[in-house]
Formats: sequence, structure tokens, C-alpha cells
Amino acid sequence: MPTHHLVEYADASPEVRAVYDDIMATRKTDWINNFWKALANNPATLKRTWESIKQIMAPGALDPLTKELLYIAVSVTNQCPYCIASHTASARNKGMTDAMFHELMAVVGMANQTNRLAAGYQIEVDEQFKTT
Amino acid sequence: MPTHHLVEYADASPEVRAVYDDIMATRKTDWINNFWKALANNPATLKRTWESIKQIMAPGALDPLTKELLYIAVSVTNQCPYCIASHTASARNKGMTDAMFHELMAVVGMANQTNRLAAGYQIEVDEQFKTT
Amino acid sequence: MPTHHLVEYADASPEVRAVYDDIMATRKTDWINNFWKALANNPATLKRTWESIKQIMAPGALDPLTKELLYIAVSVTNQCPYCIASHTASARNKGMTDAMFHELMAVVGMANQTNRLAAGYQIEVDEQFKTT
Amino acid sequence: MPTHHLVEYADASPEVRAVYDDIMATRKTDWINNFWKALANNPATLKRTWESIKQIMAPGALDPLTKELLYIAVSVTNQCPYCIASHTASARNKGMTDAMFHELMAVVGMANQTNRLAAGYQIEVDEQFKTT
Amino acid sequence: MPTHHLVEYADASPEVRAVYDDIMATRKTDWINNFWKALANNPATLKRTWESIKQIMAPGALDPLTKELLYIAVSVTNQCPYCIASHTASARNKGMTDAMFHELMAVVGMANQTNRLAAGYQIEVDEQFKTT
Amino acid sequence: MPTHHLVEYADASPEVRAVYDDIMATRKTDWINNFWKALANNPATLKRTWESIKQIMAPGALDPLTKELLYIAVSVTNQCPYCIASHTASARNKGMTDAMFHELMAVVGMANQTNRLAAGYQIEVDEQFKTT
Repeated sequence: MPTHHLVEYADASPEVRAVYDDIMATRKTDWINNFWKALANNPATLKRTWESIKQIMAPGALDPLTKELLYIAVSVTNQCPYCIASHTASARNKGMTDAMFHELMAVVGMANQTNRLAAGYQIEVDEQFKTT
Repeated sequence: MPTHHLVEYADASPEVRAVYDDIMATRKTDWINNFWKALANNPATLKRTWESIKQIMAPGALDPLTKELLYIAVSVTNQCPYCIASHTASARNKGMTDAMFHELMAVVGMANQTNRLAAGYQIEVDEQFKTT
Repeated sequence: MPTHHLVEYADASPEVRAVYDDIMATRKTDWINNFWKALANNPATLKRTWESIKQIMAPGALDPLTKELLYIAVSVTNQCPYCIASHTASARNKGMTDAMFHELMAVVGMANQTNRLAAGYQIEVDEQFKTT
Repeated sequence: MPTHHLVEYADASPEVRAVYDDIMATRKTDWINNFWKALANNPATLKRTWESIKQIMAPGALDPLTKELLYIAVSVTNQCPYCIASHTASARNKGMTDAMFHELMAVVGMANQTNRLAAGYQIEVDEQFKTT
Repeated sequence: MPTHHLVEYADASPEVRAVYDDIMATRKTDWINNFWKALANNPATLKRTWESIKQIMAPGALDPLTKELLYIAVSVTNQCPYCIASHTASARNKGMTDAMFHELMAVVGMANQTNRLAAGYQIEVDEQFKTT
Repeated sequence: MPTHHLVEYADASPEVRAVYDDIMATRKTDWINNFWKALANNPATLKRTWESIKQIMAPGALDPLTKELLYIAVSVTNQCPYCIASHTASARNKGMTDAMFHELMAVVGMANQTNRLAAGYQIEVDEQFKTT
């Protein structure tokens, strides 16, 4: 069995189907993307990962679109092509405009730059920023 | 001169003072944090970095608090202690609540996890996510 | 000459062939993968890298399969597609089962998550964990 | 409230105490390290993270010590000081010897090196390594 | 509009064309690579990024070829395929020989290795290296 | 034995002393920094790492100062405090001026920024940059 064998709905166990059904219901969509089909090779990982994401990405103190933007920021910083593609699509579905995307990229790029300037100049944390 | 000699306002050239003044006016604060004092060793970098950040972090399609949250997401992913401390403080000044911070951490943690699951399972991008 | 010109056995110098022969003998295989064919453009790097890997990956206090799992953990964290593909194949050759692979992915994913939670919450190291 | 306020057992809610009790019982220890005390500021994250780790780090196809070694490999690659300190201590408690630690470091270092050689030489994945 | 719609010269606004013209004049070339055509979707980002790069990559205390080598070192460490390909091409145009490229790769690989050994062994900074 | 027990010259085995002697002779210095004292806990790693570094950092197609600058670029990108401190000191010993350091930081910061813009905009490699 290849590493990324994709478990299709038709071939899935009842346990996996239950997760797929919940994904589609929660996301109001009628298909499952490859990420979940790959995780389904290990139903425990599929279930744990989905339930965690469902809880974390639900509306709360931060709205779902902001959470998608954060997901993209992390995925771009980590250079993860699959994650960038899938979460950019999700963010667009949740209302991300072109203008928002461009500003997101500008912030992510700048943060990656200043993170290195702070490290390279060996800058000590200001007393005012210390939390204890 | 040590690497992270910090340029204090009293010792700064007019060129550096002009940037410091703009930072304090823009941020409505009366002090300069170590990041800028270190960059001031190279006035060209100080000026370019500040002007880029000022432009990028200004209100636009995304509000300033959302931009600070994105900055934290990148800084945490990069394990940059100075940047985490300074931007967490900035975000609190712009209204980040504890509940928002906790949700931010949850999303950043989860994204770092699923980024690796996507890579490790060698998952191919779904046709639906392709942009061309 | 393109950057990743691949040096085939038939075209290799005696110095490079000696390394290729040792790779095939050590690994009990009859082919050389692209990684070594690319490094062979610089025989010094080829020889140094192979000899280091041969020494490091040999059975010792850790068995060869455990070492391959560690290699995958690093490669996935770094988002290196070539390394993930090649070391996943190597691990399977050394006995990695599907169940082991799934658990490996779960640990790597979780570690990447908690690494960021530790950073983002700016958690100080407990006295009990300090080694001096 | 500072970012990394640590929730002590004496001050914890029944919900948090239940997690602390499970951590101590599972790990056969009588104290809670700072990581959990920081997460306890958000009981939902505390509970979700602990339950995921408990499930993932339990004995399975991989033994608990191997899982700790993998955790260290990721934490070192991510340059996370807290995680390196805490998981190195955990691994020692589970039987990691000095010889094992040194071999672990050698593999992690080498993997980080060859990951970059593979990227820099722009090496294409061999057909033999493709999984579809 | 797809995320990476590429803005061709013929379709570009006068503002974008002015940047394209400056890129081609500065680099003494007659074409624009995809990076700039993608950024052109947001003229503010295009202009700011180009002006920063033009300033940073100009001859100074470091010569332009050394700067390209540094750019490759960062891009390889970050596993960014586009950046590796484009800056390797740029470096060759500026005189990087095969021998230089191989030594560059050796240094980048080794630095990534020792960075992890330093982290994993939790090595404290020597007094002699402290800058204050 | 704590993880980062430092092996002093007076307590070192002849095998370790031979490496220490070669480090001091090669670097024309009379002390050994903590990195080597920590690696000395595993003489095989000490010897292999030193011999690789000695070979890689020697003058060649790239001069020793350029190699130190590359080392810093990688160390800053990886956020490795020990490595940044030690290689910045080494670079100064080899002639890095303040002006060179500032330009180095500017390039490293910018490269980290554009690496993410290239990833986030999902930019495809131009035909002109392909090497096969």
C-alpha cells in the first residue's frame, strides 16, 4: 500500500464515513479533500485531527475567516504547498478578498524579515515586554 | 562596538531621530523599543524597515489587530522570542483579549501540526484547490 | 552544466565509482539514487557526506530502523519532499509497517504543535529540567 | 494577567485539576510541569492537548522511548529550548542512555544537513521512491 | 482571479510598468520573472519589495555576488523551490562557478547540522562571544 | 551526567585532546569554545564534525570570511542563538566590518521575506530558471 493511498468514501469503513459525513456537514460541502482521505489510513488520527480542527476553527473570540488567515500565515512560513493551496481556497470561501490576501502576504513577509533581524542583531527583550 | 549596541535618542543623529519621532507619533507612545535602537546602527535599514512596517501594518482591508495576530502567528512558528514578546504586547495594546490569545495559540499549534501531516503523507494538491 | 546534472556510474571517475560501490555494497542494492548522483558533481562532498552517513546510520545504541524514523521526523518538519520520499522508502525496506508510519506521523505532528504552544506561551524551563 | 501565568494545582478549577490528576497518574509522577500550567489558562486547550498527547505517546507499534526520541528530533529541528529540555528529561526517564542521546543528535544533525543538500541541488524524486 | 494571476507587461498599469522598466534596466535584462508578475497584483507590494531589494542588493560593503550567495543560503535553509531556482540562476549570471556553488552547498549543509547540535546539546553561549 | 557536561582539556582523553589541539592550531587560538566541549562527550561526533568543518571552511573557491557570512545567514534563519553569537564573533575575527554585518542582515531579512511571498503567491518556476 503506497504511503498516500487515498481512502474514498465508497471504500471507507463506517468509522471513517462518520468523520467524512461530519466534515461535509460542518463545512456545508459535498466532497472530501485529499488531506482527510490520506489521514483515513489511520482512523484514530483522522478522528482526533478532525475533532481538534472542528473545535479550534469554530467561531469564538476570533471569527472563522481570521482563523483561516492565521492558518495561511503559518502554512506560508512553513513552506507547505498543500496547506497554502487548501487554506487559501478555504479563506476565499469564507470571504477573503484579493485586497485582504495581498495585505496578509505583506504582513507574513514582513514578519519573517523582522524575525531574522531581531535574531541576527541578538536583541534583548525590553523590560516593558516581559510578562512576569 | 558590540553587535547590538542600542542607539538611544539622546545619542542619535538627526536622521535616526526623525524615524524615532515618527515611530512614537504613529504608535502614540513615548518610548522606543530595542528592535529599533539596534537597527539604528544602520540608518538605511532603520528607515526602510520602519517605512515598510508603517505601510504594511496600517489599517486597510485587514484591521491592525488582525495584522498583529498574524505577526504573532509567524513569530511563534519561527520560534523568535523577541518577536513573540513584542508583538504579544502590541496585540494586547490593540485589544487582544485572553480568549483571543488562547484561540490564536490553538490555531497556530494546529496549523503547525497539519502542515507536517500534509508533508509526511505526501499529499497531492486537489484539483479543486489549483488556481490556474 | 545544469545545477543538478546527475553523474551516472558509467560516466563517473574512479573516485566517485568507489563511493557508489560502497553505497551499493553497504545497502545491499544495485542502484544509486539521485541524491548521490547530484552530490557526485563535487567528489569531496560526495565522499564526506557518504562516510558521515555510513557512520551515523550504522547499528549502534539505536537500531537502523529507529534512525530512519528519526530521519523522517526531521525531513517532515523541514518540509523536504525529496528526503521524505527517500527516507520513507528506506524505512519501509528496513521494516517500517503502516502502523509504525501512522504513529510516527502522529508524534511528528503533535511535536510540531506543542513546540509552538511552548514558544507562544513563553513558557520558562522548569528547574527540574535544567541540566547544570 | 501575564501571558504565561501558571495555574497551580491549589488554584485550579475542578476541570483543570482532573487533567492534572490524569497527567500525574499516567506519568507516575507527583508534579506538573510549566507547559501544562500555562495551557491551563485555557481549559479547552489543556484538555484537548493532553488527551491527544496521551493517545499519541501511549505504547503502540512504536514504544514510548522511541516516541520520545522522535519528539526530541522535532524539537531540536525547530530550535525550541523548552521542548528540548523537557523531552530530553522525559527520554532519560524512559531509559535513554548517553550513547543513545549522542546517536540521536548525530542523526538529527545529519538529516538537517542532507535536507538542505537535497533542496539546494534541486534533486528530483527518483521513480523508485514515488508512491503512486 | 486566481491567486497567482501573472500581470504581463502588455496588461500592466503605468505604475506597474514603471517598476518593470526599472527592474529590466537595473538588471540589464529584457524580461520579467514570475515573482514580480505575481506581486504586481498588488502594486504597493510590488513597488515596496522592488525598491527594498534594489537598495539591499546593490554593491556596497558586500559585492553583489556575495549577496546572491547569501540569498541562496537562506532560500535553501527555508526549502523554497522558487527562490532556490531563481537566485541560483542570478548567482550564475553574476559569476558563480560550479566550484563556488559546491562550496556554498557544503557550508549551508554543515551550518544546518551544527545549528541543531548546538540546540540539542543545550549549549550555553561562551562569555567570549557575548557582545554586551 | 548532565546533557551538556563540558569536557575540559585537562579532563579529556588523548583522542579528544588531539582534536582540541588541531582546533586551536587551525584557528590560531588558545581556547576551545563550548560547542566542541559538548560534542566531546561523544568523541566520534567531535572528530567527524571537526574534520568536516575544517574541510568545508578552508579557503577554496570561496574565501573564509564569505563562508562565515553564509554560516551566519543560515544560523539567523534558523533562530539559533548559540550559532549566531559564535559565528558573528568568528566573522569579526576574519575581518567582517560593521558595514558588512548590516548589509548581511539586510539580505538575510529580505530573503526570508521574499521566500514567503514566493510561497504564498504559489509562484511557478519560470522556464528560464529550470536547470534540466
